[in-house]
Amino acid sequence: MSAPARDVLASSAPAASRSGAGEPLVLHEDRFFSAEPTQRRIARALYEETRGLPLVCPHGHVEPALLAENAPFPEPTALLLIPDHYIFRMLYSQGVPLEDLGIPTRDGTPVEGDPRRIWQRFAEHWHLFRGTPTRAWLDHELHEVFGVRTKLSGDTAQAIYDEIAERLQSPEYRPRALFERFNIELLATTDAASDSLEHHRTIRESGWKGRVIPTFRPDAVLRIAAPTWRDALAAFERVHGAPIGDQAAFVDALATRRAFFKAMGATATDHAVVEPYTAALRPEEADALFQRARAGEATPADQRRYEAHMLLEMARLSTEDGLVMQLHPGAFRDHNGVVAARFGADKGADIPVATEYTRNLQALLETYGNDPRFTMVLFTLDESTYARELAPLAGHYPALRLGPAWWFHDSLEGMTRYRERVTETAGIYNTAGFNDDTRAFCSIPARHDLSRRVDANWLAGLVARHVIDMDDARPMARALAYDLVRRTYKLDADA
Amino acid sequence: MSAPARDVLASSAPAASRSGAGEPLVLHEDRFFSAEPTQRRIARALYEETRGLPLVCPHGHVEPALLAENAPFPEPTALLLIPDHYIFRMLYSQGVPLEDLGIPTRDGTPVEGDPRRIWQRFAEHWHLFRGTPTRAWLDHELHEVFGVRTKLSGDTAQAIYDEIAERLQSPEYRPRALFERFNIELLATTDAASDSLEHHRTIRESGWKGRVIPTFRPDAVLRIAAPTWRDALAAFERVHGAPIGDQAAFVDALATRRAFFKAMGATATDHAVVEPYTAALRPEEADALFQRARAGEATPADQRRYEAHMLLEMARLSTEDGLVMQLHPGAFRDHNGVVAARFGADKGADIPVATEYTRNLQALLETYGNDPRFTMVLFTLDESTYARELAPLAGHYPALRLGPAWWFHDSLEGMTRYRERVTETAGIYNTAGFNDDTRAFCSIPARHDLSRRVDANWLAGLVARHVIDMDDARPMARALAYDLVRRTYKLDADA
Amino acid sequence: MSAPARDVLASSAPAASRSGAGEPLVLHEDRFFSAEPTQRRIARALYEETRGLPLVCPHGHVEPALLAENAPFPEPTALLLIPDHYIFRMLYSQGVPLEDLGIPTRDGTPVEGDPRRIWQRFAEHWHLFRGTPTRAWLDHELHEVFGVRTKLSGDTAQAIYDEIAERLQSPEYRPRALFERFNIELLATTDAASDSLEHHRTIRESGWKGRVIPTFRPDAVLRIAAPTWRDALAAFERVHGAPIGDQAAFVDALATRRAFFKAMGATATDHAVVEPYTAALRPEEADALFQRARAGEATPADQRRYEAHMLLEMARLSTEDGLVMQLHPGAFRDHNGVVAARFGADKGADIPVATEYTRNLQALLETYGNDPRFTMVLFTLDESTYARELAPLAGHYPALRLGPAWWFHDSLEGMTRYRERVTETAGIYNTAGFNDDTRAFCSIPARHDLSRRVDANWLAGLVARHVIDMDDARPMARALAYDLVRRTYKLDADA
Repeated sequence: MSAPARDVLASSAPAASRSGAGEPLVLHEDRFFSAEPTQRRIARALYEETRGLPLVCPHGHVEPALLAENAPFPEPTALLLIPDHYIFRMLYSQGVPLEDLGIPTRDGTPVEGDPRRIWQRFAEHWHLFRGTPTRAWLDHELHEVFGVRTKLSGDTAQAIYDEIAERLQSPEYRPRALFERFNIELLATTDAASDSLEHHRTIRESGWKGRVIPTFRPDAVLRIAAPTWRDALAAFERVHGAPIGDQAAFVDALATRRAFFKAMGATATDHAVVEPYTAALRPEEADALFQRARAGEATPADQRRYEAHMLLEMARLSTEDGLVMQLHPGAFRDHNGVVAARFGADKGADIPVATEYTRNLQALLETYGNDPRFTMVLFTLDESTYARELAPLAGHYPALRLGPAWWFHDSLEGMTRYRERVTETAGIYNTAGFNDDTRAFCSIPARHDLSRRVDANWLAGLVARHVIDMDDARPMARALAYDLVRRTYKLDADA
Repeated sequence: MSAPARDVLASSAPAASRSGAGEPLVLHEDRFFSAEPTQRRIARALYEETRGLPLVCPHGHVEPALLAENAPFPEPTALLLIPDHYIFRMLYSQGVPLEDLGIPTRDGTPVEGDPRRIWQRFAEHWHLFRGTPTRAWLDHELHEVFGVRTKLSGDTAQAIYDEIAERLQSPEYRPRALFERFNIELLATTDAASDSLEHHRTIRESGWKGRVIPTFRPDAVLRIAAPTWRDALAAFERVHGAPIGDQAAFVDALATRRAFFKAMGATATDHAVVEPYTAALRPEEADALFQRARAGEATPADQRRYEAHMLLEMARLSTEDGLVMQLHPGAFRDHNGVVAARFGADKGADIPVATEYTRNLQALLETYGNDPRFTMVLFTLDESTYARELAPLAGHYPALRLGPAWWFHDSLEGMTRYRERVTETAGIYNTAGFNDDTRAFCSIPARHDLSRRVDANWLAGLVARHVIDMDDARPMARALAYDLVRRTYKLDADA
Repeated sequence: MSAPARDVLASSAPAASRSGAGEPLVLHEDRFFSAEPTQRRIARALYEETRGLPLVCPHGHVEPALLAENAPFPEPTALLLIPDHYIFRMLYSQGVPLEDLGIPTRDGTPVEGDPRRIWQRFAEHWHLFRGTPTRAWLDHELHEVFGVRTKLSGDTAQAIYDEIAERLQSPEYRPRALFERFNIELLATTDAASDSLEHHRTIRESGWKGRVIPTFRPDAVLRIAAPTWRDALAAFERVHGAPIGDQAAFVDALATRRAFFKAMGATATDHAVVEPYTAALRPEEADALFQRARAGEATPADQRRYEAHMLLEMARLSTEDGLVMQLHPGAFRDHNGVVAARFGADKGADIPVATEYTRNLQALLETYGNDPRFTMVLFTLDESTYARELAPLAGHYPALRLGPAWWFHDSLEGMTRYRERVTETAGIYNTAGFNDDTRAFCSIPARHDLSRRVDANWLAGLVARHVIDMDDARPMARALAYDLVRRTYKLDADA
């Protein structure tokens, strides 16, 4: 009984350091499992069965150029810090200017350019991340991907920087080599409707066997009130190869473009809205809105109705071409206008809002939710909807699957809450398996490992309380880690 | 320490089967209790004190004809599957057509008619229910009510069907015999305002001692915008024995009908609304709405105001006749129009919506909530209101009691969340005890057993953390299982 | 393993009583810690490091007159029951008339005047508080502050009354003596904008070393639609020493008054609104609303816009004078008009409402949330916003800190939920440490002790699951108990 407690307490005792002043960095074998010995023992047994399964990544934001070019990664700061809004927003929230973290300004005003100084600043604030998934992920990356064996701190920052920088030089750290070492079975990227998919073409034609596929994300051409809409439409017309003069032509062009994405390997589309409102418009109403947009006169209210209609159109096209439709509502983007004006979008200031699904999705689900050809994967940033709206909807409509705990909720407690609130009504088989949803390529194994540990531990809690037995738990663990995501995203068919 | 863990892991080893190919079906003695040994030991001790208490069922949907006629139950599929929307909605959500499950169509289009094939289909999808209360309830029914000792699966489906079918022939499986074996002290049904209560009369006059009472549910005559309203009013006029020409006459007729229900044993009324809005209208406004309804011209907005007013009227009548008023808001009924059109209502497509109580109930609670003659039992499908609105309201208003975790939340995790969110503000004595709320007669013991186990375990968690001691926990366990429901529903007086 | 379980179960065995008929009152050394032995051991170790730290109380409602006059407390009922709405609302919710509890009526209608009979009534209903923080706090007060060693009950009520009453006579129970014994480092009161702060002046001039500071709360002069607004403005004009004829003069007067509060030691302001709506008005719009208020013609809609604007003005003044701005939205005050009419405000009928932060606070946060001179402490009664809105906002804006679990949520489960929902996104360093927020002076140590135990136990859960290690947990425990509150409320500078 006392052994684990002694281990834990002992971990605070100073230990022999491998690199100068630092404490040893250890990833505990049983991390994220319950301290209760019975549950922990079962969790370990279940995790053993899933830890080695290939990683399936049907939704994420890795740049395909990375794997097309297969160039060495730059130094540690550019790789791990600058692109990670989880990291720099936390330092910003504690008063560190974004300029000091090397975040580029829109107008080119100079910012900190020395990656070692940025890395040092970050390491000195590492304590801010105690108890957060960012810390769990990064400790995993440092230890498992880069072989670091010393805890990050102000004292160890430069030595660790050197260690990573050195590794990044070697061929084993090229993107494709890591892709293989990470045991990634499939990686989907997210691509604008007007994307040429040239990097995807390069990958396919390279002879490399890694499976990297695009995802069709037409948001930019559907937001008719955005100041950028007309440019987005123009770009779309260019890849389409013809002008698009009315709503019917626009929908046809979208269908054609979806077919191109599908031919390039896509199995899914992705759609982000603030509110998941769906409603059918008559053809002439939809066209009137499209014309208003072309004239630069569409209002936010127009956009709301147009997007509501276009979600139905996208669902209809999915019943025809079989692409899985992903819907991500509820993020209020770029809440901090001051930061957005100076640094641009995606700077850690996207804030969730309460989201209504039951009434908003009725038009779409009634119309297409009973269709066996259709699959919709639904996400939320509003956990109050898990048990209240999402699980009852997914526990009824054949087309609906619930995406995993998303973004702010992709964490030990967040994923546990998701399972506890969803399963009793929807079961696990109406959920879509795990998505890492990341642009941080090197964090992919860490995210899957955390998810597999949390699910193993959650299942172990059910077994330990005799809600299910091990005969149930084993296939459930495998389903959550591997089978469900393949089935949901229709990945079994081709390879 | 290691014994329970070994038990659990061992349960996946193949074991001697009693009936052909199946694994043994075992209900673990400590199921649903924490794996932590101290808490588990206390939970067991508390559960031992409540497991044998009679079952009090003040709110449910069992057909009174069942106990009036006391005929043998039909075969297993008609008894256990066809009427249970928890079961068929889950199979439907995974693509099994409702036709294949024998759900009758409204237009008489033929559906699967072979109960054994339906049972087989269900058994082959039994894994979908892993981790759901439906599985816990049905395993309990199979084991405890029907003596099944083999796990349900595709392989064992027919043998188990035979076993149940055989038992249903015997007199011990007639409804009244089961009622007695289940140790049901009282069973309330739910009955339309225009119901003749003939089955209740038959039961009362039969000499059988089982206590079965009606509940007055006037929803159909209050929904003035529903296309069925005029038929509902006509049926109500027939039982009333006179035409009802204005609002005053309508309220008088309702009062008379409540008195009839009360004379037939009722102690409560029941009211379902989407939104728990309450507001007093002037008499002439209420009458104008009633006249508009009679003319077939009432709008949804009219109905909203009328229902808001009639909830106040129902509360007023409760202060006079003492009937306990139950309010169940927040279900958006028949969300899937396609299924509703083909199969009718109550097909597993009722989806909760976010619900506001603080502002909506103010008119009613201010006016009647301080009246010692009045008791209101309030339910919710929106768990975010437990700690935010419901516990503060129940912790203040003398008339208010919170109903148990309802519908989707009547589960291990759901009931635990309810206790954790409600108790710290409202205590347990402002809650109404357990309701099984079921139309599945044979599931009644399973539901009470689950509730008693969850409450025992929750209390054990408080004892183990020294929040309360065993002197507190024992009467609390009894209150939650038995005393509170009797007091809330005024069942102590008569028998 | 079995020892703790035996202890717990044994606690229900009758034990030798110290004072007549009662059971012994024991505060278990490990109360509120997990029953799981590893976690409990770690929790105990962490709690040992914080239990003795001084109490910092930056937000509360103790009357400064108490410490200015330092008179003996009255008898137990007037000290512990009459002012505590947590207590009398619970008895009221179970049908005990407020008159019987000695709550004074507004019109002077006589109420129960015998404190011993009130105390007896309370003791006989003590079981209602099982599982509530009120019981945990009061048991702590009885045991630790008053040395009571017998459980409260109807049988022991009078003996315990005598025991407390006797202690209250002695000099050790004078307010200042208790302040020192409680180890209070700082106590902030809450004071109307028009308060003369004479009691604060008395304390400062008395030579006593206890640090008691005011907090500037201008709500009464900002609620322009309240019937009491013109009286509040008149009182404010009197302390200001000049008439206030327009909006510009009003804002100047507020700035002047803030400076006075600051000179008297204040480091913060406090603002209560129903909805945290913020929006800038043009100067002439704001002045028009002020003039409408002066004419007695301001509507609730006017007040909504005016308060939204004045929150921005208060933030602006904070950037200038450095006072920390506290915002407490979401309480619907005096929900029960009948009780309010008879007994006045603050009678346990304030009920939370769902609260929106993301959109409502954007204007304020965009404008001032990036300013290093500004600190805003934000509270909520709507737990669904913890993970959805508040943690993402606090994890981005430099000015924002989240106040602790507030009011109904200041409890074992409530504080645990807060940590679990906030930390993974915002970390702990964007939270503001503990506030006791109490007017019950003798409950201050109980509240801090509960908070320190809950935080130690939560951290222990992270350590036991290897999310953090003891090197992380120790400074985190200290930060939560002591460092964060001092830093947030800018208490380090002066003393």
